[in-house]
Amino acid sequence: MPKPAAVSVYVDLQVPFHDVDVMRITWHGHYVKYLEIARTALIDEIDYGYEEMENTGYGWPIVDMHLRYVRPARMGQWLRVYADLVEWENCMKIRYRIVDRESGTLLNKATSMQVAIDVSNNEMLFASPTVFLNKLRAYGVTIDAS
Amino acid sequence: MPKPAAVSVYVDLQVPFHDVDVMRITWHGHYVKYLEIARTALIDEIDYGYEEMENTGYGWPIVDMHLRYVRPARMGQWLRVYADLVEWENCMKIRYRIVDRESGTLLNKATSMQVAIDVSNNEMLFASPTVFLNKLRAYGVTIDAS
Amino acid sequence: MPKPAAVSVYVDLQVPFHDVDVMRITWHGHYVKYLEIARTALIDEIDYGYEEMENTGYGWPIVDMHLRYVRPARMGQWLRVYADLVEWENCMKIRYRIVDRESGTLLNKATSMQVAIDVSNNEMLFASPTVFLNKLRAYGVTIDAS
Amino acid sequence: MPKPAAVSVYVDLQVPFHDVDVMRITWHGHYVKYLEIARTALIDEIDYGYEEMENTGYGWPIVDMHLRYVRPARMGQWLRVYADLVEWENCMKIRYRIVDRESGTLLNKATSMQVAIDVSNNEMLFASPTVFLNKLRAYGVTIDAS
Repeated sequence: MPKPAAVSVYVDLQVPFHDVDVMRITWHGHYVKYLEIARTALIDEIDYGYEEMENTGYGWPIVDMHLRYVRPARMGQWLRVYADLVEWENCMKIRYRIVDRESGTLLNKATSMQVAIDVSNNEMLFASPTVFLNKLRAYGVTIDAS
Repeated sequence: MPKPAAVSVYVDLQVPFHDVDVMRITWHGHYVKYLEIARTALIDEIDYGYEEMENTGYGWPIVDMHLRYVRPARMGQWLRVYADLVEWENCMKIRYRIVDRESGTLLNKATSMQVAIDVSNNEMLFASPTVFLNKLRAYGVTIDAS
Repeated sequence: MPKPAAVSVYVDLQVPFHDVDVMRITWHGHYVKYLEIARTALIDEIDYGYEEMENTGYGWPIVDMHLRYVRPARMGQWLRVYADLVEWENCMKIRYRIVDRESGTLLNKATSMQVAIDVSNNEMLFASPTVFLNKLRAYGVTIDAS
Repeated sequence: MPKPAAVSVYVDLQVPFHDVDVMRITWHGHYVKYLEIARTALIDEIDYGYEEMENTGYGWPIVDMHLRYVRPARMGQWLRVYADLVEWENCMKIRYRIVDRESGTLLNKATSMQVAIDVSNNEMLFASPTVFLNKLRAYGVTIDAS
């Protein structure tokens, strides 16, 4: 059984005209923006937004991204993007589902993986920095002492 | 041993200012555009570009995309994007490698998967349409009769 | 004295991470998207959205766009984008102001000009089509008989 | 009679699939990217690229941009984007023309205006910094002593 998500959020957004291609569906690359908007909401939820990451000395570049396109999204459609933090001890893995806001019909499933970089020396960390784990603790997530 | 690629191409492109984020590296979502530019060159190579797809009655939406970010790309950097057609009988699977053009250093590995849609009834096909297989045959790819 | 605007709307939006450049401000080209989101709200307000335009036989390509950048927008900042329809008889001219949502500080002023195209023959019209003027009348705008 | 341009360059580029909208023409906002690619070539031509600007202490934000859309660009079309530096003493004003590469048919005319910012105190300059004027002198432009 998978561990439950440590943090779960969703955002609603509407597909703009400029995201739609000649086939009248959202161009597949634009979903990456939708995921980022949800991911930003997720890290803001635990008070670990970009500014906070940076002020506390870490960057979190994306190292892996996987998207499955189940049904197309169309211009003007309202989407709900769910983001769940599913791994946090050694990396930040987020799982996403994009659904039609009204019907709940699944449109897209995705995951992203990020690793921490110490910005003082640009080195990758193999375990999540304490500041991030403490943000999760403050949010109520139980984390084993290490 | 994997089958050899049926078609292999590459394109060169330079990272523009507007693709670079506050960390001074290409924002991860923009790689999807780089892949598409290489994929367009690949389908043009076998004379099966978007116009030809459409004129012969098929659309090929992306159903799966996976990207691994190995090293960051920077503003002004010249990239070489390799695209190899690695599956074609039931779908179109393309494998990509993005490298620094000068040194060959690997920056990104990716795959995309597309399936054919009959545009007359919007139905997904479970085998590639004959027109696509004939384009491959004309290009010199050996394809078992079906 | 300028004519009052026939239709006035505003939308609120937040600057996402992927719109910000290495100088940590919104890249100037992304404002065009913000204007489009407001313009879409404006034409929806009078029930003349893209689908309705198309169903009634007209396209409205942009023929002129002017932007003045007064102050930069920053990642995470909430913007309010005002759009006013200021010409409608021979073309669709919209004037925009982008302000900081909280303080009202002006960030950007812009205009866009669109002309109607009859999609049946792809010809440009020198006067606005009746369907558009009737949408404005139904919204309460006084329009001289022509 | 207008002053001749101090520096003139052009770049060639092909409209990618992801820049084209439901009307099968380049979405108007994407032209801003095409202009930037030409502008980057122009400042590189005089050895005053982004890195050099930054290393010598100045930023050059866009303060005004004007685009006139004359004819649409289409997917796969090869464009030639001309950029001419037409003002340089108090600001950097660049004039652009986008044409079909093969026929030379005009598609778009644009201008951009940039002013220098001293990055040490974030203040706007009312005259171009000496480093920029010296780059122009080194390129062969006659500039009155000031």
